[in-house]
This record gives sequence, C-alpha cells and structure tokens, in this order.
Amino acid sequence: MSKNTKVNAAILIIGNEILSGRTQDTNTSTLATWLNSIGVKVNEVRVIPDVEKTIVDTLNVLRKSNEYVFTTGGIGPTHDDITAQSVSKAFNRKYEIHKEAFKILEAYYIKGEFNKGRQRMAWMPENAELILNPTSGAPGFSVENVFCLPGVPSIMKSMLGGLKNKIAGGEPILSHTINLRTVESEIANSLTKVQDQNQDVEIGSYPFFHAGKLGVSIVLRSENQSKINNCNTQILKFIKEKNIEIVDR
Amino acid sequence: MSKNTKVNAAILIIGNEILSGRTQDTNTSTLATWLNSIGVKVNEVRVIPDVEKTIVDTLNVLRKSNEYVFTTGGIGPTHDDITAQSVSKAFNRKYEIHKEAFKILEAYYIKGEFNKGRQRMAWMPENAELILNPTSGAPGFSVENVFCLPGVPSIMKSMLGGLKNKIAGGEPILSHTINLRTVESEIANSLTKVQDQNQDVEIGSYPFFHAGKLGVSIVLRSENQSKINNCNTQILKFIKEKNIEIVDR
Repeated sequence: MSKNTKVNAAILIIGNEILSGRTQDTNTSTLATWLNSIGVKVNEVRVIPDVEKTIVDTLNVLRKSNEYVFTTGGIGPTHDDITAQSVSKAFNRKYEIHKEAFKILEAYYIKGEFNKGRQRMAWMPENAELILNPTSGAPGFSVENVFCLPGVPSIMKSMLGGLKNKIAGGEPILSHTINLRTVESEIANSLTKVQDQNQDVEIGSYPFFHAGKLGVSIVLRSENQSKINNCNTQILKFIKEKNIEIVDR
Repeated sequence: MSKNTKVNAAILIIGNEILSGRTQDTNTSTLATWLNSIGVKVNEVRVIPDVEKTIVDTLNVLRKSNEYVFTTGGIGPTHDDITAQSVSKAFNRKYEIHKEAFKILEAYYIKGEFNKGRQRMAWMPENAELILNPTSGAPGFSVENVFCLPGVPSIMKSMLGGLKNKIAGGEPILSHTINLRTVESEIANSLTKVQDQNQDVEIGSYPFFHAGKLGVSIVLRSENQSKINNCNTQILKFIKEKNIEIVDR
C-alpha cells in the first residue's frame, strides 16, 4: 500500500434482482461517484446472487485485494437477506445480536412492533461497528475493511455521510471533460499520441448522442491538476487544427 | 453441465467510465432481461477497467466457469478500446484484420473516410465470428463462448436479435410478482416458511416506495410454472390471514 496516494476499493452488489434484470442497479454509480470525491478509486465491481457460499468466497477475495470493500443489499429482515451471516462466516466471527443495533431498532419501532423479523436486523458479526441509518432506523455495519450497506438506493445514499470519517482516502481524483461535435474515429489517432505522451493521465473517449446529434466526450482523469491542464492543452491544439467544434453537450 | 436445463452466463462490463461513476451502466439490466427470456441465468456480473491484464485474467476465469460470457465496451476505434486485443491474448489467438469485418466497414463509410482509426475496428482475434450491427456498421464478434458487444446501450441492444441463434438457452425462467401494501418485517416469518417448503422456487422480497406509499414486491422465479403456482397459493393464504392488501404497485 503506497503512502495514501492511491486508495482502492471494490463494490460488491448482492442480489438476485440485479442478476435477473428486474432491478436496475444505481448503487454502483452512487458509491463510485462518492468514493472518487474522497480520493478512493474503484478497482472492480461484482454483482452476485443471494447465495451464502458465493458471498463468503467473493468477499474473501475482494477484502484481501482492496483497501476497502463496500457491499450493498441483503441486510433487511427477510429470508433472502443473508449478508450479515455471510460476512460473519467470511471473517470467522460469531453471528449474534448486536446490542447497540438492537437498542436503536427497539427505539425506532412503536412498542409491540419490534417483532422477530425486525429483530433479525440486529444480528451481525461479533464486534461489528455500526453505520447509522438516518432514513429508516436499521443500521449497516462494518467489519475491518468491509462496509455493509442496504440495497434500497435512497437509504444507502443517506448513510454515506456517516461513513466519511471511517474512510482514509488518497488524493482526490480530478477530472476534466471536453465535449466535441465529432466522431471517435476522427480523433482516434491524435488522441492515441496524446495518451502516449501523458501516461499519468487516464484519457477516456465516449461517444454520445444528444438532441439528435452525435458527439464525443473526452474525459481526462488524474490526481494532478497540472498534468490534466497540460494534456488538455495538447488536445485543444489538435482539435483546433482539425477544425472540430467544442460543444456544451 | 446438465442436459440444457440450467444454462449460466456471466456479464463482463469493460470500462473506466462505469468504475468512476461517470456513466450509469444499463447494459447489465438489458442483457440480463434478454438472457432470462431465452433461458439463460446470469450467475455473475463484473465491471473492470480498460486494463489489458485485468481483461485477460478476468475473461479466463469467467469463460471457464460459465457456459457463456458477454462483454460490453472497448470495441470502438480509440486508444482505450482494447477488448479485441485482450480477447486474442486470453484465447492465445492472433490479433489480425478480420476480412469480412473489414469489408463491412469499408462499405459502410463514404469513400475516403475509412481511415486508420476506423480500420482498427476490423482487428479481431483470428477466426472470430462476427456479430452484425444493424445500427452503426461496426460488428461485434464471438470467440468460442465469449460474445463481445459494444458499450453504447442502444447499439448493444440492437445487436441482440442477431445473437439468438447462437445461444442455446435452457428452460425459460418464469416469474410471478405479488405487490403488497405492507413492510417486509410483517411478512418475513411467513415468507421464510414458504421458502423452506418450496426450495425449487427462488423467492425474492423487495421493498418499494411508490406514489408516496411503502410496499413490498414478492418475486417468485422458477423454470416450472406449477411450482410457482403452488408457491403463490401458499403466499396468498398467509396474506389473506394477515389481512394485507394486494396492490398494482
């Protein structure tokens, strides 16, 4: 692990509903955008089913090859919510009632409504740290470098604020976008040359179709603003030579 | 591999733009829905960056553990489009001009406009089979059980029709959804009992918030309609007993 300049994470989306196509995942994009803003680069995303062995095995690979792992899904009250028990197995920790989580949930529900299903959400790996949930009571949790969040996008998003202090990010990853009225093949060769001369800047090229017109977004990404600026100057130069229009998009 | 009753696939989304959060992936959901409809179950999705070694290694894992692998992204004309060369390496095949692809592209562009950048899209693994592109000329390709599609969602989608004959699906996966005006914890215990008695039906429970009201969708999935019906009857029974309202959603 280098001295806090590159911090990597994996995202693990747990849920049959994503794999069946029934539900469109948006948690990846929310988490990735937030992680980028605090200097954590997402290395890899995996989507896996609600199958204990698969969750345990995947988690044990990802948590060893990434500084952080963020899971979403599987921490609700129903039979298909098996993330907490799977994380317990992955870390070889007891799966038990978390006293603080139990208190939070007990206080959240009207007296008499804290039933067995709801109590299930207080079961966690031994010594898990809670991730508070400002939206709907039931907390998430973390064990070492693994952070377990719910699958419902609005609730997941509301819990990120409380996580900020627990994640040590690196240099924020900066980006600059240039939108052009052109097609990729018109600029491919020039862009390759600029990439060859700017190995430290990640240059992406993405065709778009907007308001009936084709275009290309060039995205420059680096931790270093002056490297982005330098790269940008070289791109603007060939764009001018080729007489390509810059657009708002 | 059992006799065509369960056919599994992995989806491999290739592209830095998904990992940075800049672009919301929708190809997973499109592909998964389509695959389900032809009896192919998606086991796993991975999103990885435009890095050759990562693509080669991931592909070599996925193609051996799944009947089919579908990749999206990285087959355009720019420097960050490295899927075809990576697939060549993964299969240890030459990376070369595909004559038929070259002809298709040559015919697609106006004379004189089939430049070096565009010619790059004709480079493929030796003996790759083409996947025709009715939208924008440039074909995708397959090698053995790996099918490589473009990342632009509308173009990717338009190419699926041409793939149907190349995929031998199993029994189509049927599903039935019951939407309820309740919360998960009200039905969790009863649902667990039904799942225990119907191991062959995959029962999913998904909270929703629609038009200002909370609800839960119960989704039953199986290749066998009568098993779904049986499971449905048991669920309707406890719903009635609990006096829970069924809604359209």
